[in-house]
Amino acid sequence: MAILDSLNTTRLLPFTLQHSEPFDPSTVISITVFFSLICLCIIIGHLLEENRWANESIAALLLGLVSGAVVLVISKGQSSRILVFNEELFFLYMLPPIIFNAGFQVKKKHFFKNFSTILSFGVVGTLISFCIISSGVLLLLKKIGLTQLNTNDYLAIGAILSATDSVCTLQVLNQEETPFLYSVVFGEGVVNDATSIVLFNAVQSLDLSNLSGITALELLGTFLYLFFTSTFLGISVGLLSAYIIKKLYIGRHSTDREIALMLLMAYVSYMIAELMSLSGILTVFFTGIVMSHYTWHNVSESSRITTKHAFATMSFISETFIFLYVGMDALDIDKWRESNSSAGTFLAVSSTMMALVLIGRAAFVFPLANVLNWLKKREDQKIEFRKQVHLKIPILVAAPVKICSVFTNYCNFQFIIWWAGLMRGAVTVALSYNALSHKYVLQFSGSAQGTLNERSLMITCTIIVVLFSTLLFGSVTKHLIGAILGIQRAAASLSELTVHHVWRKFDDKFMRPVFGGRGFVTYEPASPTGAADPIHEH
Amino acid sequence: MAILDSLNTTRLLPFTLQHSEPFDPSTVISITVFFSLICLCIIIGHLLEENRWANESIAALLLGLVSGAVVLVISKGQSSRILVFNEELFFLYMLPPIIFNAGFQVKKKHFFKNFSTILSFGVVGTLISFCIISSGVLLLLKKIGLTQLNTNDYLAIGAILSATDSVCTLQVLNQEETPFLYSVVFGEGVVNDATSIVLFNAVQSLDLSNLSGITALELLGTFLYLFFTSTFLGISVGLLSAYIIKKLYIGRHSTDREIALMLLMAYVSYMIAELMSLSGILTVFFTGIVMSHYTWHNVSESSRITTKHAFATMSFISETFIFLYVGMDALDIDKWRESNSSAGTFLAVSSTMMALVLIGRAAFVFPLANVLNWLKKREDQKIEFRKQVHLKIPILVAAPVKICSVFTNYCNFQFIIWWAGLMRGAVTVALSYNALSHKYVLQFSGSAQGTLNERSLMITCTIIVVLFSTLLFGSVTKHLIGAILGIQRAAASLSELTVHHVWRKFDDKFMRPVFGGRGFVTYEPASPTGAADPIHEH
Repeated sequence: MAILDSLNTTRLLPFTLQHSEPFDPSTVISITVFFSLICLCIIIGHLLEENRWANESIAALLLGLVSGAVVLVISKGQSSRILVFNEELFFLYMLPPIIFNAGFQVKKKHFFKNFSTILSFGVVGTLISFCIISSGVLLLLKKIGLTQLNTNDYLAIGAILSATDSVCTLQVLNQEETPFLYSVVFGEGVVNDATSIVLFNAVQSLDLSNLSGITALELLGTFLYLFFTSTFLGISVGLLSAYIIKKLYIGRHSTDREIALMLLMAYVSYMIAELMSLSGILTVFFTGIVMSHYTWHNVSESSRITTKHAFATMSFISETFIFLYVGMDALDIDKWRESNSSAGTFLAVSSTMMALVLIGRAAFVFPLANVLNWLKKREDQKIEFRKQVHLKIPILVAAPVKICSVFTNYCNFQFIIWWAGLMRGAVTVALSYNALSHKYVLQFSGSAQGTLNERSLMITCTIIVVLFSTLLFGSVTKHLIGAILGIQRAAASLSELTVHHVWRKFDDKFMRPVFGGRGFVTYEPASPTGAADPIHEH
Repeated sequence: MAILDSLNTTRLLPFTLQHSEPFDPSTVISITVFFSLICLCIIIGHLLEENRWANESIAALLLGLVSGAVVLVISKGQSSRILVFNEELFFLYMLPPIIFNAGFQVKKKHFFKNFSTILSFGVVGTLISFCIISSGVLLLLKKIGLTQLNTNDYLAIGAILSATDSVCTLQVLNQEETPFLYSVVFGEGVVNDATSIVLFNAVQSLDLSNLSGITALELLGTFLYLFFTSTFLGISVGLLSAYIIKKLYIGRHSTDREIALMLLMAYVSYMIAELMSLSGILTVFFTGIVMSHYTWHNVSESSRITTKHAFATMSFISETFIFLYVGMDALDIDKWRESNSSAGTFLAVSSTMMALVLIGRAAFVFPLANVLNWLKKREDQKIEFRKQVHLKIPILVAAPVKICSVFTNYCNFQFIIWWAGLMRGAVTVALSYNALSHKYVLQFSGSAQGTLNERSLMITCTIIVVLFSTLLFGSVTKHLIGAILGIQRAAASLSELTVHHVWRKFDDKFMRPVFGGRGFVTYEPASPTGAADPIHEH
């Protein structure tokens, strides 16, 4: 009967009002401006494609900031926003296509090979980060002069700032170039969502005067229930779609129907999960995985091409939309005014939050990675911290290799995992509105003005953290990974400067042209593949 | 500054309320149920594919009715609906993909070859139909006992019931089988929208005490402005998209970006048209035409396959959604209660409306078609009314041909155009809510209860007309066209039973096998194309 109760909530208005909502022109304006800006982002993104420092997300964030500033000037300081931040829009329409597509296109082999690592980071890591950030804000914000927030607020801030943004990660890590990093960091982000929901619900309803060991056990039980039920639901819907399409379409395919069924069933899986208060993100992620493994192979060739690109396009549009949204929201003048604080306070709170995010993540990435390395037996599954370059080279070339290896030893995979997960994005913004503004009306409508101000300050500072982390880490990460991989390659090639290698080079350049030798006679300089050139093989 | 005024309307609520709307569970339930039902429609539609009597639309309508009944029973007569009818949803999100896809997939050659016919039907025809239906309801409804509606209401009903539903037409006419009929009936539906908007706006603001010839001229001017500006806007956006993609993507294609740009720019064209109070439907239709003619050829092969199928799928989902929606809305118990009328009144009003729709359409299709035939010189552009079968056959076979031709003469193209345009669909429902319910609150909040009742009655009867026409004409049309084309083919093949034909058959069967002849010696029975079989050429 819960369904019926909800049904009836749509019937609160009498008939004469129900149909009378006029066609709101501001919706049309918002959509027009927003979609035009997305088009602009796509064009800019394309022009920036060769650029390692920027990408569509950053273009969208900056364009959002600029648009916000323009609206602010035109409206004479009244407003910076075209759309009001809407959780429903974000969680019901923008997020599902992104996560579904991630599951649909993820390299399943890598994901499951690193499953234990992903689970450890996503669950234990998030808990560690949550504890550090919560206690950090509890201790430090009081020193800055904030006294009105209660412990539940601090715990909420900890949970919000522990949420790794998988959307940003997708933008800066390349699955093809760095499959291991991609699967670990992105996988962590997905599992992290289930953890966040548990933490969040727990924090919202936590009775701080009555804590015990049973509470912790209950939390663990809830998490396990959420994780397994969500995964099971996602796999079931995925398998059902595969079965239906396989059974129905023997002999006669209908491309439109196949695509529509896949799309709708994936979306329904997310919705059912939300309805059951599970993690829709986990569910739709597994639906994507199962659909790409079974359903996709049951449809026609044109359906395969279409789904592959159409799902990627939907995800791409949603991502750009979200970044534009967050950029535009940052200049929202009301939040700044509402918090009633000085620029110094903003700076102090934001820096504290950012520092805690850095520390909170470092506190679990490095220890957990080393514990995992210790537990794992196979060398190729370990997360390198100190790359051992076994030098068998003359002392003359050893110096530059050593200098490079000092750098690569500290800028390695563990470092990248720490770094790439530092971004906080639209998910954080959505959660912060959810946690901190709901209470204004629902629970704390009678609160003192000081509490309201400080909560506004928290929202604003969260957005500053999101902007700062996305712009900084987003722009640098791609470059950094490129540089590290480049240095590792250079070090690898330097380390190959062994006596044998030096001799080989000398042999090829001076001796063989004169004296000939194995393979040298049949050497074909114009060979297109280079396969006929045995002297380049090592 | 009109934009800013609208921007400010989104800021009416104070900050503390803006972000506080909770995640509405009824939205999640509605979406889950709705999307599951669409999946079911698709599966049923696939199973019914071979069936000429039913299709996805009718399946969706019936499924909507059944679901409405189930909800009605579960809620103990409180409500039949999961979603409240929402104009914004319909006009901003459901309609654009359908019309865009229609423009994108329409056979341009046929559309432009029949452009004068389409314009005549869409403009002059709609005006004739509007006049007949308006004066019809004005005269007849009073006899049924309705006295509370004013002249503006009657004019609105005339405009609403004159709107041909292009969505339904797309479902029952097949572009491949009957390209001429498809382009005329569907093209008329698109132009019809521009006419409806003019009529509608005129009717809403018409001062009946002060009518003159200038009013008519003004209406004509507005229509021409709307038509040409909308078309121009659509063509411009289409060309712009082609130019951007051509300029940007020389040498390096990016499938996701190409698809996203096409999709977003098409949508933005619709929104800009709506913003400028033009006909978004006309605009997005022409954007679709230009995109399929230029932009589509500038993108990569995989983008071409993807756009073709993805746009068709979007349109397909929207269509199914709309029919499900209308079906579910039909049992809305509040409307029935509100109108406070007997079953006899419902039946009388609905029948009157349906009869007027039939007469109003007949009053322009047959006269206009004959005027157009008289004006056109080329035989193949005429809309046949009386198919002349020139019989040169022996008296023995003439009798069955004559009998068939009597039937085909009356069931021909003009008849089909009249018949296929009789369906009234979701557009009519949306317009009727717009016209008749807005006034409840906006203008007539002080009206007598009787007026309110009669307006509810109008809405309910409009929905009955929509359901009845879609179910009847939708299920029969495909069958009818198939039957007519079959009879025409039979008549054509009978008419080929000339002396020459009979001789040819006799020759092939008995003479040539014995005596040989032209081409007979090289006869290859296993030829895959049949091209080497000259005796089958006529």
